[in-house]
Amino acid sequence: MSEEKQPPIEPISGTIVPRYAGPSTFCRLPELRDVPYCDVAMLGIPFDSGTSYRSGARFGPQAIRQASRHLRTNFHPAYDTEPFKQLQVADAGDVACNPYNIEEAITQIEVAATDLFTKAKSIVSLGGDHTITWPDVTGVARARGWGKVSVIHFDAHADTGDIEFGSLVGHGQPMRRLIESGAARGDKFFQIGLRGYWPPPDILEWMTEQKMRSYEMTEIVARGFDVVMDEVIDASMDECDGVFLSVDIDVVDPGSAPGTGTPEPGGLTARQLLDAVRDIAYRVPLLGIDVVEVSPPYDHADITALLGNRVVLEALSGMAKRKSGEPWDKSQPLLDGRS
Amino acid sequence: MSEEKQPPIEPISGTIVPRYAGPSTFCRLPELRDVPYCDVAMLGIPFDSGTSYRSGARFGPQAIRQASRHLRTNFHPAYDTEPFKQLQVADAGDVACNPYNIEEAITQIEVAATDLFTKAKSIVSLGGDHTITWPDVTGVARARGWGKVSVIHFDAHADTGDIEFGSLVGHGQPMRRLIESGAARGDKFFQIGLRGYWPPPDILEWMTEQKMRSYEMTEIVARGFDVVMDEVIDASMDECDGVFLSVDIDVVDPGSAPGTGTPEPGGLTARQLLDAVRDIAYRVPLLGIDVVEVSPPYDHADITALLGNRVVLEALSGMAKRKSGEPWDKSQPLLDGRS
Amino acid sequence: MSEEKQPPIEPISGTIVPRYAGPSTFCRLPELRDVPYCDVAMLGIPFDSGTSYRSGARFGPQAIRQASRHLRTNFHPAYDTEPFKQLQVADAGDVACNPYNIEEAITQIEVAATDLFTKAKSIVSLGGDHTITWPDVTGVARARGWGKVSVIHFDAHADTGDIEFGSLVGHGQPMRRLIESGAARGDKFFQIGLRGYWPPPDILEWMTEQKMRSYEMTEIVARGFDVVMDEVIDASMDECDGVFLSVDIDVVDPGSAPGTGTPEPGGLTARQLLDAVRDIAYRVPLLGIDVVEVSPPYDHADITALLGNRVVLEALSGMAKRKSGEPWDKSQPLLDGRS
Amino acid sequence: MSEEKQPPIEPISGTIVPRYAGPSTFCRLPELRDVPYCDVAMLGIPFDSGTSYRSGARFGPQAIRQASRHLRTNFHPAYDTEPFKQLQVADAGDVACNPYNIEEAITQIEVAATDLFTKAKSIVSLGGDHTITWPDVTGVARARGWGKVSVIHFDAHADTGDIEFGSLVGHGQPMRRLIESGAARGDKFFQIGLRGYWPPPDILEWMTEQKMRSYEMTEIVARGFDVVMDEVIDASMDECDGVFLSVDIDVVDPGSAPGTGTPEPGGLTARQLLDAVRDIAYRVPLLGIDVVEVSPPYDHADITALLGNRVVLEALSGMAKRKSGEPWDKSQPLLDGRS
Amino acid sequence: MSEEKQPPIEPISGTIVPRYAGPSTFCRLPELRDVPYCDVAMLGIPFDSGTSYRSGARFGPQAIRQASRHLRTNFHPAYDTEPFKQLQVADAGDVACNPYNIEEAITQIEVAATDLFTKAKSIVSLGGDHTITWPDVTGVARARGWGKVSVIHFDAHADTGDIEFGSLVGHGQPMRRLIESGAARGDKFFQIGLRGYWPPPDILEWMTEQKMRSYEMTEIVARGFDVVMDEVIDASMDECDGVFLSVDIDVVDPGSAPGTGTPEPGGLTARQLLDAVRDIAYRVPLLGIDVVEVSPPYDHADITALLGNRVVLEALSGMAKRKSGEPWDKSQPLLDGRS
Amino acid sequence: MSEEKQPPIEPISGTIVPRYAGPSTFCRLPELRDVPYCDVAMLGIPFDSGTSYRSGARFGPQAIRQASRHLRTNFHPAYDTEPFKQLQVADAGDVACNPYNIEEAITQIEVAATDLFTKAKSIVSLGGDHTITWPDVTGVARARGWGKVSVIHFDAHADTGDIEFGSLVGHGQPMRRLIESGAARGDKFFQIGLRGYWPPPDILEWMTEQKMRSYEMTEIVARGFDVVMDEVIDASMDECDGVFLSVDIDVVDPGSAPGTGTPEPGGLTARQLLDAVRDIAYRVPLLGIDVVEVSPPYDHADITALLGNRVVLEALSGMAKRKSGEPWDKSQPLLDGRS
Repeated sequence: MSEEKQPPIEPISGTIVPRYAGPSTFCRLPELRDVPYCDVAMLGIPFDSGTSYRSGARFGPQAIRQASRHLRTNFHPAYDTEPFKQLQVADAGDVACNPYNIEEAITQIEVAATDLFTKAKSIVSLGGDHTITWPDVTGVARARGWGKVSVIHFDAHADTGDIEFGSLVGHGQPMRRLIESGAARGDKFFQIGLRGYWPPPDILEWMTEQKMRSYEMTEIVARGFDVVMDEVIDASMDECDGVFLSVDIDVVDPGSAPGTGTPEPGGLTARQLLDAVRDIAYRVPLLGIDVVEVSPPYDHADITALLGNRVVLEALSGMAKRKSGEPWDKSQPLLDGRS
Repeated sequence: MSEEKQPPIEPISGTIVPRYAGPSTFCRLPELRDVPYCDVAMLGIPFDSGTSYRSGARFGPQAIRQASRHLRTNFHPAYDTEPFKQLQVADAGDVACNPYNIEEAITQIEVAATDLFTKAKSIVSLGGDHTITWPDVTGVARARGWGKVSVIHFDAHADTGDIEFGSLVGHGQPMRRLIESGAARGDKFFQIGLRGYWPPPDILEWMTEQKMRSYEMTEIVARGFDVVMDEVIDASMDECDGVFLSVDIDVVDPGSAPGTGTPEPGGLTARQLLDAVRDIAYRVPLLGIDVVEVSPPYDHADITALLGNRVVLEALSGMAKRKSGEPWDKSQPLLDGRS
Repeated sequence: MSEEKQPPIEPISGTIVPRYAGPSTFCRLPELRDVPYCDVAMLGIPFDSGTSYRSGARFGPQAIRQASRHLRTNFHPAYDTEPFKQLQVADAGDVACNPYNIEEAITQIEVAATDLFTKAKSIVSLGGDHTITWPDVTGVARARGWGKVSVIHFDAHADTGDIEFGSLVGHGQPMRRLIESGAARGDKFFQIGLRGYWPPPDILEWMTEQKMRSYEMTEIVARGFDVVMDEVIDASMDECDGVFLSVDIDVVDPGSAPGTGTPEPGGLTARQLLDAVRDIAYRVPLLGIDVVEVSPPYDHADITALLGNRVVLEALSGMAKRKSGEPWDKSQPLLDGRS
Repeated sequence: MSEEKQPPIEPISGTIVPRYAGPSTFCRLPELRDVPYCDVAMLGIPFDSGTSYRSGARFGPQAIRQASRHLRTNFHPAYDTEPFKQLQVADAGDVACNPYNIEEAITQIEVAATDLFTKAKSIVSLGGDHTITWPDVTGVARARGWGKVSVIHFDAHADTGDIEFGSLVGHGQPMRRLIESGAARGDKFFQIGLRGYWPPPDILEWMTEQKMRSYEMTEIVARGFDVVMDEVIDASMDECDGVFLSVDIDVVDPGSAPGTGTPEPGGLTARQLLDAVRDIAYRVPLLGIDVVEVSPPYDHADITALLGNRVVLEALSGMAKRKSGEPWDKSQPLLDGRS
Repeated sequence: MSEEKQPPIEPISGTIVPRYAGPSTFCRLPELRDVPYCDVAMLGIPFDSGTSYRSGARFGPQAIRQASRHLRTNFHPAYDTEPFKQLQVADAGDVACNPYNIEEAITQIEVAATDLFTKAKSIVSLGGDHTITWPDVTGVARARGWGKVSVIHFDAHADTGDIEFGSLVGHGQPMRRLIESGAARGDKFFQIGLRGYWPPPDILEWMTEQKMRSYEMTEIVARGFDVVMDEVIDASMDECDGVFLSVDIDVVDPGSAPGTGTPEPGGLTARQLLDAVRDIAYRVPLLGIDVVEVSPPYDHADITALLGNRVVLEALSGMAKRKSGEPWDKSQPLLDGRS
Repeated sequence: MSEEKQPPIEPISGTIVPRYAGPSTFCRLPELRDVPYCDVAMLGIPFDSGTSYRSGARFGPQAIRQASRHLRTNFHPAYDTEPFKQLQVADAGDVACNPYNIEEAITQIEVAATDLFTKAKSIVSLGGDHTITWPDVTGVARARGWGKVSVIHFDAHADTGDIEFGSLVGHGQPMRRLIESGAARGDKFFQIGLRGYWPPPDILEWMTEQKMRSYEMTEIVARGFDVVMDEVIDASMDECDGVFLSVDIDVVDPGSAPGTGTPEPGGLTARQLLDAVRDIAYRVPLLGIDVVEVSPPYDHADITALLGNRVVLEALSGMAKRKSGEPWDKSQPLLDGRS
């Protein structure tokens, strides 16, 4: 593809074509085949055969895309940036993962992720259950540097299980596989939002050996979310070329994210997550993103799918602002700041 | 009507007639035709033809009324006030707006609002989509002073659009129409809770020219909600005779307000909204109120309709406390304060 | 039963038997008949004939048990404790309460609660509406000391009504009956989370006379939840042998707890409740617990039932930690603390 | 009240006032207090304390009234009749039944039903659970002739239980109480649509002794619904002055009536019920009607409430047609028949 | 476009790409721009501003497309035909109708329908509310012959209203407009499935004058559905060049089609509708089809959207079978028929 | 186990213990470990990893058990039989199938089914998706005679696929595997209720070669359901020792069975299915039964789970009646038949 000779093809405007009309691509963006170049490619990964409790995340990609219709215009006023003007974003469609064979699906996802980097500078994956993060980050690492990818991981669960039901692969184990393979480094792995009754002592011990840094909600509440996030962001770039951001939607409290497989009461607010994601994308280079565990059969009024969409949008806005090189002050008034 | 010769007719008590029984008026209050005088009249405005995404707010007035059955007794203990003893409140029924002709509906609503001031001192409108605020505030301004009404506007969206789909009227544009007509002044217009991907730069520019003051969530989080609210309340009464309070229920996070047309993750908590509304009603004279964008088809367990009802009740409690002239200290214990 | 000669029979592990399989007991624990001794017995009380608004809590016990399947392993990492290893917990099944005769149901519950203390050291009751707390605490008091039980009561409502619909018994009155009978002392009664339009002045007066201490949300917000909870916990044990913890799930905001009978917007967050419950159980001896007003017909994605389950789990974790005698520091990192 | 000096006050037209606007009375009819005379009075009986499985029917009357907004105009084209022109129908509001005391509620309902006959010629009761049919028919019998009322009873269950949970009263027993008291005669009691695992042999024996005639679905399918209905209607008027029609909405298959307390798969179609009700009302004089067991918390898209409303409308149309004295031919084309 | 030089591009197979993956076009068919020729074009018409009761049909086209993912392979065994092998079907996307201006929307739809005939031989429109049938059939008539289109119309309502809320256009009036304009002939207009309380006498009179033939459910039940359908199909082609098939999903009983705006109990079964549609498409030439009034906010488990999809599929199968010229015997066994 | 020395232990009566109370076993029956002998054992098979579209059937067993609480007493009046008095039925709990490895799950299910025959005379399996029927029937065949089991299979789909997504196993293929292995004979395989767009021609050809007999809905409607069922039942016992009954709940129309993975509009009525199942169980010896594809996340008001439960109950009633040796006449009146 030719590089950026022309301004990006933007989403269809919701003030011209009603938002409930038009194509079902992410944010009604062009398909990947229809753009001459691509900064960020959206990849649907409709796979949930690694789910151990409530399934349904296989319908996640299409639900997040439908919820993305909600977007009306192409400007983030609080951030004073236009993500789809700064970045050519396009929808690459779905990986056709095998629902009956987890190992084959893993391979299919990894190949798709690696391949996509030949067409785009970074990728956003729409899950699917958390199983996909192993092949997804592996694909990124293959394309952008083995072991050079730091991971910031929002989740209610550590997902560092070893063997479960005789399998090395499932939605409770991807982070362990990633570190064991060397695709990502344990000491560059940051987890935020853990809570509840997992992991057990032997897994915790392994995590400690890997030098992972996991922030349980109790610590987050005690020390303050902003303090913790600053700590994570500051530490994430040492010795790494970029960051992969993995967001399990269950990091947010079930009240604001009911449509997920293993909801865990007592999570982050939606605002905390969105602000943090935007900040990460602004302060460090993102190589890839995934948003996982949106399970439409358990959603209500699409609020979880909508939240998943907003996580992606905030990341894109942060990336666009970072690209612009402009400074940003959170406490600046919306209107006074512009006058 | 004769003026306050007698104590108000209060809602039917939920300890005598079960709350799921009895009339479907707001809080099982008397109808307007059945009271000799009226301090606050409730007006249903079942209109949602100005909706650009998810509709359904046409069923809002009846849903809020049904949810208002939840009220058991007539006393606000934390506030030590009895709103329905201080104020005669009555249900004025619905405006029969034309669903097929927005312009005609606008006229119908404005006429109804203005007329109602001949029977009541202030009005509460139950929407309906946000389109109704243009004729509603215009009606108030006609009755109580053109350009003398300050507006405090809770919303995820600024609603200051110009022409959309060829129309000057819709739920994304009422605030612009109000300021353009002079019914309300731009420099006396305060917006709280904005977030997401609207308005675009040209609209922001217009808003800045009008000297509007809009608090986006980022600023609210950075500076503190209480600080912001104090700033708004203090500024609202300069050069104005009173305040109109417009509450789009989507200002609250979708977790607590799923039943709405354009939910925007990352909003206020229900508690923040309720406390602020009560405070406003206590500290400044309210000329009118509307609660809009409650969309029952997307609601669950009626929690959004119930929240809409509570917004009105807290406003009434604040108005009653203000009328009583009593001071109020938020940190006072519930019981010790009474002993 | 023989006492603790052997380690407890633990829940079935979710990594061996999938969580959606296996028995429907609470957390897939053994039935009471299958354990040689019991520290904590779970008692279902499927009764909602005392409900004055939305019913359905009769299906609460089975919904909380089904939601308890969510538990995967037997370890609380943030707390570094294994509740089901420290405590033998068992499911005692349901009381078969008469749905048509409140008085008879009251007796049935009280007898069941008292009896259960011959088999278990403490009991957890799964409601049911709040009516059950009168007989439940009475049963505890008979077994563990009349008037020696302090009560910590989380609720949106004070539940201290006198006669309603001609009856002394219902879900709005249990706390009054408990204090009047002397089973619990008014000056050892602590209420957290009250809000909305109840109680009326005469009831407030009676509560003041009883020296009850009720924290309305306004005070909680003004003074800080942690401050309030410390005050409650510190005061709860004076002159008492232990504490009964009664949790009406409606203390949490309807966004995170929609499945309840009388939702009241503006409540605690799930995290606040869970942290507080764990703290109470760690700092004072719990004689009994109930979790009430989970109403499945109004729940969505089982998030309210899941929250009810987590309330119990956090209480058990606190009890286990207390039994272990180990100290606990909330701000300790999850992993660093273990290395 | 003066008798029929003037044409009836009709429902508000849905082509003038949108159907989602206006009063929440049944079909937006006038209240009883606002009509000079009344042919049929609607009485809400929001009571479900006699429910033995899923409750929620206490919200039935308001749900049926809200669903009745669906009515657009006042004409039944297939029947060529205008029920609200032939009959003055009015909404008499709700009985405020005691939820905590079944016996008292029974008395309240019976008194209300009897009283209403002083104001109206016949009554339609909107339940509520089936408990209400005992006092309701008793009230009719007191007003219109003890033992002179034949009962046609559509239901999946016979509701002829004796003592349950120590009580003579509940939603499984009203028909037995009615026959035992003599208010209705067993040999003039016709049940249609029974199925499932009730009643047990001893109850069947009692029913046989009373000479009740109960059509189980197996017989209905084997012999044909129309045959059975003709048999019932022909037999119903012998030795009686009129018929009471009791419709438990669960007589219809759960697919078309999910919102009910004890759904029983394999029931009538909605069409069969509606046609039969209209036929009954046309061929025999109806003294009273009840529609019970509509349980909104279990309903979806209000289809059960809407069906409940249509049952009443079809009965009114049949009554109107009967009053007109016109013949009716079911196979007559809609348009040709008019030309 | 070149004509049929090559076999059609078929839907993506559900045995290769999982059905929940891949594009969101109708049945995962190619877009219109991607086919060299087109027999049948699918047109989404997301418009519901003509709705007089429950809205939401604006989300119908995308819901029907999502539900169309259910299709697994490209063969109708009972019919022994492969619709997508016989016909090139393609998705033409949505018309961007103006939600705020019904007249403009009408024009937009009519233009889009007429234009599409330059690219396809026949069109299938996915509504949207029934308002769209006026411009849709007008567009067909312009393209294929004014007044030469017979209309077979399945609906619970006649939709022949005159002026409503001051407007000639809305979802209750399209059939009148069509006949008045001459686009369709009254005596070639066949309505099946009418029921309930509409139309009123003056409208019936007008319909009779137009020589419309409307089959109310009462006549259908009395005479038999198959008899009626044969009568319709036989009469439909006299003096006409082809048939337009308009299916309001509310013709089916709300139990099987809850997700619609004005559900009317007592309708056709899904099987009756599907069999009839297939038969019509086999026996007469279809010029156009619309499926309207699928309202997702009121749907459950997508069963109404799925039914809407199946209506289209059955029509396509009938068209394909008709094109093949093969005979068809309904009572032929599935397997024996092939051996 | 000792054989039938004592009467069966029956379900807990719903007139003594409220139905929403008590154990969560199927129909509140005893567990298998608690009965001295067993005629019919219930086996939960919570497995849905073979699902190709909407999953969720893993929660089927517990949903069917919860819905089975609806049973009130132990008598089928239309059938004049008491199934739980004639047969000792007990709940054998769940198979803990591996969700991540279909092949291992298949083995686990087959072993469990075969083993269960050492403890019970016949088994009822509660699915799970249809994948389970391969190992389930294989288990029956191993225990009761290889190739001696006739299969009567109610389903919307033939489930005779060959390789899908590279796998021989999944919910679209069990019937092929059964016939290929010889566990069941193709010419003793009867399918009822097929419809829609599957199977493709090559699969149909294979089915024809196996001499399977499949009744598509078109043939069923044309020839009559009773005629077809008689044909099936009469043919089923030639050369076989007994029948396995496999009921995919999607054979019923989605209106009455929305909670399933691949709903197909236009199916049987619930009554048709229930009557047929009862008839089969009465007229031929059932060796095993499964009820599959109940998917709770898509269910509403539990009507699909309830239908699944009733399928089992009707089968048990037929089996009991068969054991009694009594004749049965469908057209016999309920009451007259007993006098």
